[in-house]
Amino acid sequence: MLLARCMARGFFLEHNGVPMETVFEARRERLRRAMRQKGIDALLVSGAANRYYLSGFELHDVQFNESSGRLIVTTGGRDILLTDPRYEEAALALWPAEALRIYRGDGVSEISRTLGEFGSRIGIESAGVAWAFIRSLSKAGPALSLEAADGLVEGLRAIKDETEIAALRRSFALNHRMLEWLPGEIVPGRTEREISWRIERFFRENGASELAFPSIVAADRNAAMPHAVAGDAVIPENGLLLVDVGCRVDGYCSDQTRTFEIGCCPEPAFARTFALVEAAQRTAIRGMRPGMSLSEAYGLAMKVFEDAGEAHAFTHGLGHGVGLETHERPALSTRGTGVLLPGMVVTVEPGLYYPAWGGVRREHTVLVTEDGVEVL
Amino acid sequence: MLLARCMARGFFLEHNGVPMETVFEARRERLRRAMRQKGIDALLVSGAANRYYLSGFELHDVQFNESSGRLIVTTGGRDILLTDPRYEEAALALWPAEALRIYRGDGVSEISRTLGEFGSRIGIESAGVAWAFIRSLSKAGPALSLEAADGLVEGLRAIKDETEIAALRRSFALNHRMLEWLPGEIVPGRTEREISWRIERFFRENGASELAFPSIVAADRNAAMPHAVAGDAVIPENGLLLVDVGCRVDGYCSDQTRTFEIGCCPEPAFARTFALVEAAQRTAIRGMRPGMSLSEAYGLAMKVFEDAGEAHAFTHGLGHGVGLETHERPALSTRGTGVLLPGMVVTVEPGLYYPAWGGVRREHTVLVTEDGVEVL
Repeated sequence: MLLARCMARGFFLEHNGVPMETVFEARRERLRRAMRQKGIDALLVSGAANRYYLSGFELHDVQFNESSGRLIVTTGGRDILLTDPRYEEAALALWPAEALRIYRGDGVSEISRTLGEFGSRIGIESAGVAWAFIRSLSKAGPALSLEAADGLVEGLRAIKDETEIAALRRSFALNHRMLEWLPGEIVPGRTEREISWRIERFFRENGASELAFPSIVAADRNAAMPHAVAGDAVIPENGLLLVDVGCRVDGYCSDQTRTFEIGCCPEPAFARTFALVEAAQRTAIRGMRPGMSLSEAYGLAMKVFEDAGEAHAFTHGLGHGVGLETHERPALSTRGTGVLLPGMVVTVEPGLYYPAWGGVRREHTVLVTEDGVEVL
Repeated sequence: MLLARCMARGFFLEHNGVPMETVFEARRERLRRAMRQKGIDALLVSGAANRYYLSGFELHDVQFNESSGRLIVTTGGRDILLTDPRYEEAALALWPAEALRIYRGDGVSEISRTLGEFGSRIGIESAGVAWAFIRSLSKAGPALSLEAADGLVEGLRAIKDETEIAALRRSFALNHRMLEWLPGEIVPGRTEREISWRIERFFRENGASELAFPSIVAADRNAAMPHAVAGDAVIPENGLLLVDVGCRVDGYCSDQTRTFEIGCCPEPAFARTFALVEAAQRTAIRGMRPGMSLSEAYGLAMKVFEDAGEAHAFTHGLGHGVGLETHERPALSTRGTGVLLPGMVVTVEPGLYYPAWGGVRREHTVLVTEDGVEVL
């Protein structure tokens, strides 16, 4: 093939009567405010999800070393999309021709020239560009002052707008439908890999454009590894199966985990562990509210495990933001800084893991509202 | 979910009785020779496909901004794999514990410390690391001399070894099986998107771990765009359908294109165009041999189009390397430097495009042999 295609377009033309152009423009306006505070003239947006969030252009890059295009947002208000000929048509479907520039190769000289038109203090998403690209850009435009300016767009993306919440609801609705359908598929003798493929097929045949991430399907002891591979292990007659899966609908990821009991006589510790995890999740969901610190949210679940003497078996954070990417801001853990804010969408996924027999994780995703959280 | 899982393992434990450990070690030995010529003490391997090629560890990163781990190859012969706790078990399945280091967070301090043990001249794959990572690494180990050292591993990967050729044969065999099955699925009234999903399902249910790239399925005029999106366009009663698709089997990508005639009365220009593209491809495949320059290979096909007065409609290169990634070295185009060498695996994909009615592309992939090429 010559290159990966752009995402299926069209779904983001309009939301509740508001053209998506207006939504993207509003997001860039918010970004401009953050840029002015930072004192930069232009931001070179390179991260694929950031680029898409601000323009609707291409949610994915072709490969790590092959960008689908860059967006320059300027404090002056003129924003330029730059891409190569392969994407010209896709770009013209959503971006004015006079603000579109088509480059050859890696686009360094065209990008450098364009940045030079808009000022000298240039912000770079340093986590979103390859070092090689910056080396070339520095050579091409030695007069440009390139400085790392990370997290500006990610900060905006942490608070979901109405369009995003609507898309997330659709993505989670499909995820719930799949989880309702799934128990009939968990047949002893099938492999983890087979279940994993059946889940993917369900998502894809019911409206998902792709998986949000490779599914985790883990039987018995495999469930003790929080990041198990779906492999050749077989669903047992009696035991457990942990399923951590997500789909992408209208650009937005969903992410949920359930642990299923199989047969009549599971591991004796299973019922108690399941109840504890459920209690921890319920306690967190009931207690979370805007203004609460991220580490405090984590502490709500941890406290339940501590009281039961099982804190050692809770080996990861409580959750993370979900949106255009599966892993976004904020991080709900002891190291998380900041607070919950209305519009954040975060997973709540406590788990307890015991190498001897397996583990239980339970994950829902919630929208932070004005006075608490709502399960999506 | 907590993170993306590692690839299904196990398939690379052995090839023709040779343990894959030995294969990976031999590749690192070849790399060491290239490193010594360049005068670097250690190479920090960050590109996901390069890391996998040299160690078997994780073919994919979680997200652009989330590495699954780094490999340090040293001229002294001690090589270290570094990753975070999520991947510890996967790493231990294929890498000796004494040469494995587990880090927290982005691993910068652990990586810096490890690099410092092996010398001061450190090669960096500048196209494979984020600028942010290099900024942190420079601060963490100010005594280290970090220099860009790109393409060393890609250069090795351009020449496929026996194990790789065997995997590529399996990947292309499945691709051929799909293309034999496909015509019965090209039913007028179905959308491009529906055909695209049927193709993916065939691949996945017959041994592929994933698609090599998003499928291009383009009806009629959509085929005039070399990088069409599979959308809502419907397969016509009479017309054409261009299909450019690839699957991944045992880690290796396949990539083939066919243009199908549908119904009784296609566009009058179709038959002539099809014959021309076929002739250009046949001429290239018959003429390609080791030692020939890459631009000369491109010229073989271009000459056929020039003689027919259609050169203007051939708007892209003739082909590209295929392996662990769909787009690899070498590039068969006017700008390609270097020559064809035995062991290279490259696509041969001439195409002619006419916005008024569509286009034709035909793509096979060949292995360069001692005296010509063999179609995979």
